[in-house]
Amino acid sequence: MNEAQFQTTSIQEISRDRVRGASELARRCLAILAEYARRLPVTRCGRPTPADMTELKEKLEAFARALQATRPSMAPVQNLVERWLGILGEGPEDSLEGARAHAVASAQGLTEESIRAVVEVGRHASGLVKPGQTVITHSFSSTMLKVFESLAERHFNCATIRAIVTESRPLLEGSTLASHLSKLGIPTDYITDAQMGLFAGNADMAMVGADSVLGDGSVVNKAGTYLLALATQDKSIPFYVCHESFKCIPRHPVDVELEEMDAAELHSADLTHVTTRNVYFDITPARLITGRITENGITKNAPLVV
Amino acid sequence: MNEAQFQTTSIQEISRDRVRGASELARRCLAILAEYARRLPVTRCGRPTPADMTELKEKLEAFARALQATRPSMAPVQNLVERWLGILGEGPEDSLEGARAHAVASAQGLTEESIRAVVEVGRHASGLVKPGQTVITHSFSSTMLKVFESLAERHFNCATIRAIVTESRPLLEGSTLASHLSKLGIPTDYITDAQMGLFAGNADMAMVGADSVLGDGSVVNKAGTYLLALATQDKSIPFYVCHESFKCIPRHPVDVELEEMDAAELHSADLTHVTTRNVYFDITPARLITGRITENGITKNAPLVV
Repeated sequence: MNEAQFQTTSIQEISRDRVRGASELARRCLAILAEYARRLPVTRCGRPTPADMTELKEKLEAFARALQATRPSMAPVQNLVERWLGILGEGPEDSLEGARAHAVASAQGLTEESIRAVVEVGRHASGLVKPGQTVITHSFSSTMLKVFESLAERHFNCATIRAIVTESRPLLEGSTLASHLSKLGIPTDYITDAQMGLFAGNADMAMVGADSVLGDGSVVNKAGTYLLALATQDKSIPFYVCHESFKCIPRHPVDVELEEMDAAELHSADLTHVTTRNVYFDITPARLITGRITENGITKNAPLVV
Repeated sequence: MNEAQFQTTSIQEISRDRVRGASELARRCLAILAEYARRLPVTRCGRPTPADMTELKEKLEAFARALQATRPSMAPVQNLVERWLGILGEGPEDSLEGARAHAVASAQGLTEESIRAVVEVGRHASGLVKPGQTVITHSFSSTMLKVFESLAERHFNCATIRAIVTESRPLLEGSTLASHLSKLGIPTDYITDAQMGLFAGNADMAMVGADSVLGDGSVVNKAGTYLLALATQDKSIPFYVCHESFKCIPRHPVDVELEEMDAAELHSADLTHVTTRNVYFDITPARLITGRITENGITKNAPLVV
C-alpha cells in the first residue's frame, strides 16, 4: 500500500466506523498516525536537510487534520490529535529518524494516558452505585463498559446491581453493551429506545458516555441521550455523564455540526415526498445533567473553564 | 367453523393484532360481535322461551367480555363493547330473531358513530395547523391518519405543510403512516424514535393519537409518546392528543396494566442475564398535554368529568 492508499483506507475506516465510541476512535487515529509516521517515505541517509524535516512535519500535520475532519462531532478525535500535533512540534529537529520515533512514541504515550483516564472514570463512577441499585444507560460507550466492568469487580455478586440498556437504533450498538453485560453477569433489561421513558422510572440513576462535552457543559452523545435526560429529570433520578477530560471541547452548541449518516441504515422504504433522516447525535443541555464523572472525580455540572 | 372455533379465531385475531390502532380494533370487535350474533345456534321456530332469550344474551355477553379482556389497555375496545352491551339490554324480549337483529344493528350503529367521530376529530385538529407549519407525531394512529387526510384536503398544495414521523420500534408502525403521507403528497421526515428530541425542535406542534385517555387526563399511547411530550415541553411546542370520546376511561394510571408483547419482536440475541422487554404503551401525564382534540372540539387538558 503506498502513502496515498494508506491515507484513503484510514480515512474511510475512521469515517465509516459505527461501532467504536469516540475515545476508542480517537485512540485508533493515534495508532494510524503512528503507523503513518513509521512508513512515510522521507527516509534518507545522512543528515536531513531542513526541507526534509519540513516535509515530514507538513505531511503528518496534513494527514492528522484530514483525520480530525472525518468526525467533527467527536471531541476526543479533535483533542487527542491536537495534543499529538502539539507534542510533535517539540520533537528533535536534527534527525529524521529521531523525529519519526518521537511522533510514534508520543502517539503511544497519549493512548496510554487516555486508557488510564477511562479506567479512573470507571472507578469513580462505580463508586456511586450502591448494592441493589439499577443503572439505565443509552447506546454503547467504551467508557460505560469500563464503568460496568468496575461495578462487576466491586460487587462480586453481580446480581446485587442491575442495568437497563437501550438498543440504540439504527445500528443497535446497545446490543454490543448487552452482550458485554451478559458476560459480566449483570442482570440487564434490554429495551427499545422508545421504552426509555417507561423504564427510567425503574432505575436509580442514568449514566451515559459522551462524544463531546461542550463549553457550556452540554453534552453531545448518541441521539436519544437528550430524551433519557428529560425522562430522568421528570422522574427525579440523577443523570450522570462519564467521560475522560479529552472529551471536553470549548465550543458552543450552535457551532456544533451533528453528523448525519447514511439513511440506508434505517432500511426504510423509498417513498416519494418522504426523506429518511439519520442524525447520529443530539445535545443534552447542562441543566439536565446532575454531574460529570471524569478521571479527576465527580463534579456537579458547570460550564468548562476554558 | 363452529361457535367455539369462531370465538377462538376471533380472540386470537384481536389479541395478536399489532397493525390496527385502538379505534379500528374496537370497530373490528363490533363487527365480530355482529357476526357472532348472526350465527349463534339458538334459532328456533315459534316463540322463544324465556330460557332461549337468556341463553342468547348470556352467550353474547360472555363473548363480548372475552373480547374486552384481550386488550385491557385499549379504552375503545372496552367502551364500544360496553356501550353495545348496554344497548343489547334494551332489545326486544319476545323474538329471538328480533333480538339477534337488534344486536347486529346496534353494532353497526356504534361503528358508524365511531367513524363519524374520527372524521370530526380530523376536521378540528387540521384547523389548528397553519400553512407552512410542521407536525411531529409518533407511531401509527388511524385518527392521526384522518388528521393528515383532512390537512391534505385543506391545503390543496400539500407542500405548504410538513410532517415528522417516528418509525416506532419494534414493528415500525410509523412506516405505515409514512407510506400514507407519501400518497397524500405531504413532505415528511421519517426518523428513528431516538431522534425525537432532536426533531421536536423542527416542529411547530406535536399531535398524537391515544389508546386510552384516563380519568386524570393522562394518556396511554404507544411507548415513546411520553418522551415526545417531554421533548415538546422542553422546546415550548404544543402537544395535542387527538381522539374520539370513546377513548376516555375513568381509570387511574396506577390501575392501568400496560400490555407487554412478545420479546421476539425485537429480534435481539438470546443472552444469559439479559431480558428483552417489550412494553407497548407508556402513560403521558396530563401536565405535559396542551390540549385534547375530540369530535366535540378542542379543549385544554383537564381531568375527565366522570
